[in-house]
Amino acid sequence: MSEAHPFDQGLAFERQGDAVLVGRTHPAWRNFIGPFGGLTAAQALQGVLAHPQRLGDPVSFTVNFAAAVADGEFEVEAVPARTNRSTQHWTITMRQGGAAVATATAITAVRRDTWSLTEAEMPAVPRPADVPVPGTPPRVEWVKRYEMRFIEGLFSGSWDGADSGGSLTRLWVRDNPPRPLDFASLTAMSDIFFPRIWLRRSTYVPLGTITMTVYFHAREEQLRETGTGYLLGQSRGQAFGAGYFDHTAQLWNEAGRLLVTTHQLYYFKE
Amino acid sequence: MSEAHPFDQGLAFERQGDAVLVGRTHPAWRNFIGPFGGLTAAQALQGVLAHPQRLGDPVSFTVNFAAAVADGEFEVEAVPARTNRSTQHWTITMRQGGAAVATATAITAVRRDTWSLTEAEMPAVPRPADVPVPGTPPRVEWVKRYEMRFIEGLFSGSWDGADSGGSLTRLWVRDNPPRPLDFASLTAMSDIFFPRIWLRRSTYVPLGTITMTVYFHAREEQLRETGTGYLLGQSRGQAFGAGYFDHTAQLWNEAGRLLVTTHQLYYFKE
Repeated sequence: MSEAHPFDQGLAFERQGDAVLVGRTHPAWRNFIGPFGGLTAAQALQGVLAHPQRLGDPVSFTVNFAAAVADGEFEVEAVPARTNRSTQHWTITMRQGGAAVATATAITAVRRDTWSLTEAEMPAVPRPADVPVPGTPPRVEWVKRYEMRFIEGLFSGSWDGADSGGSLTRLWVRDNPPRPLDFASLTAMSDIFFPRIWLRRSTYVPLGTITMTVYFHAREEQLRETGTGYLLGQSRGQAFGAGYFDHTAQLWNEAGRLLVTTHQLYYFKE
Repeated sequence: MSEAHPFDQGLAFERQGDAVLVGRTHPAWRNFIGPFGGLTAAQALQGVLAHPQRLGDPVSFTVNFAAAVADGEFEVEAVPARTNRSTQHWTITMRQGGAAVATATAITAVRRDTWSLTEAEMPAVPRPADVPVPGTPPRVEWVKRYEMRFIEGLFSGSWDGADSGGSLTRLWVRDNPPRPLDFASLTAMSDIFFPRIWLRRSTYVPLGTITMTVYFHAREEQLRETGTGYLLGQSRGQAFGAGYFDHTAQLWNEAGRLLVTTHQLYYFKE
């Protein structure tokens, strides 16, 4: 039997009743401190995705990172706070040793066909095959779990302190090895962007995401169509100051469909 | 004694212990169905702002509108899920008759001076005094609580079904009558934007915000500096389809300081 995909290993749980999943951090997903936040986000959402009372698919998800997740066990509790005819509101808590390490909310909904239009159109960029993978080896483990092809806006790593003039990044990304896209992996990939402040300042500063929100514009059908294809990620910071900065981001599939719009707030030191 | 400002009337509460505030809907803030969502958002955040255990000022806030708020009493329960050295994570529930009508999370933090930069600079626009207030009287009560001066992107109301080609809106806004800006009123004003779909489609469709996230780039000091001045609001939709659409938005003060970046997801019918 072949080993499970690293993402599925990271997302493995044991169930304790309807509301609680028990998981365990996985060395393949290590970041500087604790695991990759995108995996933590996916784990929190998994409490909803795997819940037997779930109605529909995720349309909105917000996760707040309250503390670094320590190596070892954690539990995810997802509670349907309100169930309407076609929408459902969830509150989620991830705990270690009884203390909250993340809080989250999600909205799921039964979606139906309506008028549709994409105003944030995919920018004109080279195809994935024409964009190289960076030559420098990743310094943290989780980065190896993704194939990232930077079109523009990879921080240089020379840390010369020069203002880069902007924080726009565009990259093609997919799971490494490839894995068919689902709501959990799409959530994780919404956190794929390196911190805007490193790019803008060309200076290393300690930091971390404290909250991320994901709006899902894709349904199951678009995830199936995307399959193991690349996503084009675009991210840009808006404001930096008093210890915090944000970014706003989009993920399109290769066919140009906008799958996700997403936002983050980071803390930083100095 | 003069009557309280309408916003303070809308935000009046009785306390039940540390965690629970009891409020009441106010006719001055009526929308088509239920009250203005911005006021509901401010009421939910007020559970944190008024909490005796609060550490620091809000940096992030997400509210999910689970049901229309019915005329009458409601309660707001705010619980500090985790308190760190300089940050605090909150979960908030607004209830009527024991059922959740809104869920929310917030992060508060003690902020300090750091490197700062605004990448999303305020666009060049005419001054408030040079931009007229629309001549047509508001059709819902809450709109009268704001002085709105549309620079561009007010939907025509002729509903001719023509694609407007874009959903960008820019307007100057402040409380009517003017009121010194605080975190609660800034939260409410983050919801000031009319639905992007009405502007883009020139078609009336029933809809409502289901979730809003606010990132606060302003501290007390910038709120004081802003005082009763105008805010420049800018909003643009990114994707519309399968019953939902989003927008991303910014609020600057007249001095060009970016106070808030904010995002919403709406449901719509057809």
